[in-house]
Amino acid sequence: MTGISFGSDNHAGVHPDVLAAVVEANSGTVPAYGDDAVTTEAKRLLRGHFGDSAEAFVVFNGTGANVVGLQSMVRSFESVICADSAHINVDECGAPEKLLGAKLVDVPAPGGKLTVEAVDAARWGVGDPHHVQAKVVSITQSTECGTVYSLEEIRALADYAHERGMLLHLDGARIANAAVSLGVDLGDLGAAAGVDVLSFGATKNGAMGAEAVVVLRPELAGSMEFLRKQSMQLASKMRFMSAQVVALLTDDLWRRNAANANAMAARLASALEDAPGVTITDPVQANAVFAIIDRRATEVLRTEFPFEVWREDTGQVRWMTSWATQASDVDAFAARIREVTGDHA
Amino acid sequence: MTGISFGSDNHAGVHPDVLAAVVEANSGTVPAYGDDAVTTEAKRLLRGHFGDSAEAFVVFNGTGANVVGLQSMVRSFESVICADSAHINVDECGAPEKLLGAKLVDVPAPGGKLTVEAVDAARWGVGDPHHVQAKVVSITQSTECGTVYSLEEIRALADYAHERGMLLHLDGARIANAAVSLGVDLGDLGAAAGVDVLSFGATKNGAMGAEAVVVLRPELAGSMEFLRKQSMQLASKMRFMSAQVVALLTDDLWRRNAANANAMAARLASALEDAPGVTITDPVQANAVFAIIDRRATEVLRTEFPFEVWREDTGQVRWMTSWATQASDVDAFAARIREVTGDHA
Amino acid sequence: MTGISFGSDNHAGVHPDVLAAVVEANSGTVPAYGDDAVTTEAKRLLRGHFGDSAEAFVVFNGTGANVVGLQSMVRSFESVICADSAHINVDECGAPEKLLGAKLVDVPAPGGKLTVEAVDAARWGVGDPHHVQAKVVSITQSTECGTVYSLEEIRALADYAHERGMLLHLDGARIANAAVSLGVDLGDLGAAAGVDVLSFGATKNGAMGAEAVVVLRPELAGSMEFLRKQSMQLASKMRFMSAQVVALLTDDLWRRNAANANAMAARLASALEDAPGVTITDPVQANAVFAIIDRRATEVLRTEFPFEVWREDTGQVRWMTSWATQASDVDAFAARIREVTGDHA
Amino acid sequence: MTGISFGSDNHAGVHPDVLAAVVEANSGTVPAYGDDAVTTEAKRLLRGHFGDSAEAFVVFNGTGANVVGLQSMVRSFESVICADSAHINVDECGAPEKLLGAKLVDVPAPGGKLTVEAVDAARWGVGDPHHVQAKVVSITQSTECGTVYSLEEIRALADYAHERGMLLHLDGARIANAAVSLGVDLGDLGAAAGVDVLSFGATKNGAMGAEAVVVLRPELAGSMEFLRKQSMQLASKMRFMSAQVVALLTDDLWRRNAANANAMAARLASALEDAPGVTITDPVQANAVFAIIDRRATEVLRTEFPFEVWREDTGQVRWMTSWATQASDVDAFAARIREVTGDHA
Repeated sequence: MTGISFGSDNHAGVHPDVLAAVVEANSGTVPAYGDDAVTTEAKRLLRGHFGDSAEAFVVFNGTGANVVGLQSMVRSFESVICADSAHINVDECGAPEKLLGAKLVDVPAPGGKLTVEAVDAARWGVGDPHHVQAKVVSITQSTECGTVYSLEEIRALADYAHERGMLLHLDGARIANAAVSLGVDLGDLGAAAGVDVLSFGATKNGAMGAEAVVVLRPELAGSMEFLRKQSMQLASKMRFMSAQVVALLTDDLWRRNAANANAMAARLASALEDAPGVTITDPVQANAVFAIIDRRATEVLRTEFPFEVWREDTGQVRWMTSWATQASDVDAFAARIREVTGDHA
Repeated sequence: MTGISFGSDNHAGVHPDVLAAVVEANSGTVPAYGDDAVTTEAKRLLRGHFGDSAEAFVVFNGTGANVVGLQSMVRSFESVICADSAHINVDECGAPEKLLGAKLVDVPAPGGKLTVEAVDAARWGVGDPHHVQAKVVSITQSTECGTVYSLEEIRALADYAHERGMLLHLDGARIANAAVSLGVDLGDLGAAAGVDVLSFGATKNGAMGAEAVVVLRPELAGSMEFLRKQSMQLASKMRFMSAQVVALLTDDLWRRNAANANAMAARLASALEDAPGVTITDPVQANAVFAIIDRRATEVLRTEFPFEVWREDTGQVRWMTSWATQASDVDAFAARIREVTGDHA
Repeated sequence: MTGISFGSDNHAGVHPDVLAAVVEANSGTVPAYGDDAVTTEAKRLLRGHFGDSAEAFVVFNGTGANVVGLQSMVRSFESVICADSAHINVDECGAPEKLLGAKLVDVPAPGGKLTVEAVDAARWGVGDPHHVQAKVVSITQSTECGTVYSLEEIRALADYAHERGMLLHLDGARIANAAVSLGVDLGDLGAAAGVDVLSFGATKNGAMGAEAVVVLRPELAGSMEFLRKQSMQLASKMRFMSAQVVALLTDDLWRRNAANANAMAARLASALEDAPGVTITDPVQANAVFAIIDRRATEVLRTEFPFEVWREDTGQVRWMTSWATQASDVDAFAARIREVTGDHA
Repeated sequence: MTGISFGSDNHAGVHPDVLAAVVEANSGTVPAYGDDAVTTEAKRLLRGHFGDSAEAFVVFNGTGANVVGLQSMVRSFESVICADSAHINVDECGAPEKLLGAKLVDVPAPGGKLTVEAVDAARWGVGDPHHVQAKVVSITQSTECGTVYSLEEIRALADYAHERGMLLHLDGARIANAAVSLGVDLGDLGAAAGVDVLSFGATKNGAMGAEAVVVLRPELAGSMEFLRKQSMQLASKMRFMSAQVVALLTDDLWRRNAANANAMAARLASALEDAPGVTITDPVQANAVFAIIDRRATEVLRTEFPFEVWREDTGQVRWMTSWATQASDVDAFAARIREVTGDHA
């Protein structure tokens, strides 16, 4: 239970600096619901990255961040175009449909990435009351397939959207991994790239449990306080959540944590590059390695190292690394993969 | 800002034992979403109080606990009868209506307490498709007015409900304060009293941010995992939330914390008993004192001690105590109240 | 079953002129969903009454008209303030809560009428994310109690709302009865009185089944086509519904129908004025008479004439008249009421 | 405007016998909301086809029938698997998502038909709270592509569903056309084929505007009255809607109407069989012909005969026939198609 896991980047614990910040926040009585100095500081730091007009709203988890953000962008008869593999589409138990009352239009997205062409094909029936009206393009950065959109790819989607009165949403549950992968700052993935609202992910980056909706288009921010509360995503003792965000944004901890996670995924992929029984299926650009290995090998390996079977039909598996993954963990895992898949090759 | 507050029991920080448990939980990698030993222990401890058939689901906050619990109990054409002062009715920004798609039927409730008579008057149109169908009675224990239902009062409401195919929900954001007030165990306020689903409050009792839905009627539990996830109330790094519940349920910390809070409210009420400018409006049975004082006194006092104006029309104010409130805090506050209200008497 | 009914104005059938218009519309193939000449004419006639900027959307029924209209006015965290007796509050099985995802805040309303004072008392917590934000005042004209708002009363509510960034909605299921009662045109109850969106009721006025949402504030109209469709209120063979509206708005049929209904209610009230066992409880200003009679009398009378028991607790009953009610019906009913209540006086 | 249309089967008017029934229903006052003899007769006739345990609920339109029916079958965290071309998926402006709060999982469906294989591929993550839980398979009969499921195909889907605790829903907006195509009775497409809830379409079959939800599994019927009302699909003057259903089910009018529509589609397809510029894309089994013709031909033809462009990308068009289509209409249209497509071949 406290061994090595490649199952998810949320199997890791809390980075010591984040935990220290939480402990430090526990001093005396302070106002609840965000009217405290730590939250003010978290907002200030996020504005430092995302720009002076960015307004940040700390929430509990990634689903909450996505759904609260999207609520500021769509009405129930409008739709959100997303990748078929998008977290909002397949991993949130229908929370977007329930809370938005709106349709997600999912499109095939090789490598987890939307293209202007794919989005355009999914946008039709404009002005026709029989059809949902495409309003938001939602992308995930880094994607659910471990790939990363280039700044140009994001900009192209943003331009496409804005020219049509649509908006661009970015699920940044792993935005730090993407920024590190691209060698840019967090803010380069925000308004600078044309994004209108984003989910800023802290939990997978080393926090205990905290995310933020960052609204980059001021006219969308006015309803956010209400949407967050009604969506049950407003913490009473907010200081303990904001402290996590502050810690990650202090001394570039976010970057160091993501850099380690990404490097460990690259190390794993590299170690398996020429392994005969292993086919890496997607470019390894962030902190995930997707591969196809023999099902019997999967069975054996999972008794030793937790990881996910991604697609039952193809036998594809997912190996995630985190801020806490160590080189020795990777090396041991890679060696064992080679051994076991060799037996079943 | 880190001074004394009577504004809310969530202005207090985290009890040291709870914080220690959170820190201790940060060891190695463990499965996410509740498939961990700490969560198992939290469930075991809750079953110890609420009975072997109780199923507990840890969630982020009180609104989440109430709304997820109620979702297992009502369909959209059914209604929840509650006190007009109920948290679900006035302090959750319409989250119940949004998530349930159902109507809350609020009834006048002196002292924050529902009676069988009040509920019965609000239950009508049974079987008539033009009207919402009364399905759940929801009570808050201790109430939003600082009062406490006796076991007999709960049982009467439960019997009323069950005889009519209805269910009883208990918002236990301050269930520990109620149990201490009544001198009973937590479990005496659950199935033993006829309650079907309850929100178990930990945050106000000294946690950092954690609550649990406790389902006492097994047939309602089957959908809870899905409802919690879809309602965006499932934590990924669950162990850190469960650890808080475990700490409070260890060595009766919940009871000690609630006992302090209740004692401090009683101390405050007692100190003001014969104060000429202070009218205490509700029985002080838990950790709140409701009083009417002169509005100018309120103005002055709030510059020194945070507290809430409860009703603008009557000038009623609310003074909350918590696990962290100290006798010296209360004494200083009471003295100052006497002083200031005396000036405006 | 085809006898005289005072149960509801929708127990009456269809006025012959309306039925003739429906039959006449059945000529050849025409485009569906409102892209037809009859619908164009219905819109033109409604604009003739409600002004050139009025946009009308024909829907199936009164609940649909109310809910579709309100959807253009509120977001889920906003609220609708209405009378406790409002149809949207008690007779639509929670459709507003379900479709709006929002809270109705109902206030005591003697005679079914809201006042500025009552609305103001229900509007609180403005800007506080814990509370729903009051956005719409919804009134019913004529009211569910058979009374009629004066133009001044409506204007006062409109001014109150508009000065606070709120909107005024009018449920006009019986708008024709109100206009006749006040001796004004339909349009005088629209933008002229400060109303922003209204439900135009045709069914109770002699149609077969048709209502319209009339949007008087152009900026709210843009989403209506989509909201109507998504709310399942868009008819495919629309011409047959629009024909009903056209017929009622031709040669002032709406006025003649309402005038008869109102006159019949007045006749009934007048005939019972000094009846010893009958207490008329509300001013008879439209087509309803509310009265309290002995419960045993009610029992006997209902075996002969259908009518509603309005409140079980007080024994209040409701007698409705319609376009089809005849003086002889009223006289027979009144005579029988006198007889039976006399027995039980 | 009153010429020949191949645009939709709801461009046609009302069959004279249906209209006569509506006119005849306009006699005296009767109870509203379905408590009348005509509605009783409609239910009796539907039971005659669909079995003694079938419970029918008349609603306004097809979207209403589908959404009200589905509401009795799924909770918000459950999903409906349907064809990508399903009306509920693409032509109801997101009404299912809005009203169900649930996800539709659409799968590729050549010819508009689901297969067990396609459904099975879309059913995954069972028991995993991160994923919506597949609960209903929804098919359309006849399909949106003018094809018809065989009884064996329906039964296979029903068996698949029932073996997994799922349910089978049938959108029968054109159920009459399907029954005629298969040479079976309406009831053979209901419980006999394993269907649990269906939408019985009357409007396209010659009614003015009426459909019914037919519940074939009694345990699902209990909530229907409330769901219909809350979904704003309960007519007050119900008799006029029920009369339409009665008329269609009297003397097999439904069958004659559908037979004509189907025959006219077959006639059109046959007349174009060897036309050089016309590629018929789907089997013509009901009352629709889908074809690909030159876009310039489409442009010319649509100035003379209304019809739909089905897919902009391929130039596919849809020609619908109805109860009112005449052989001479078809012949004139076919001749003109040959002429114009010849010019552009």
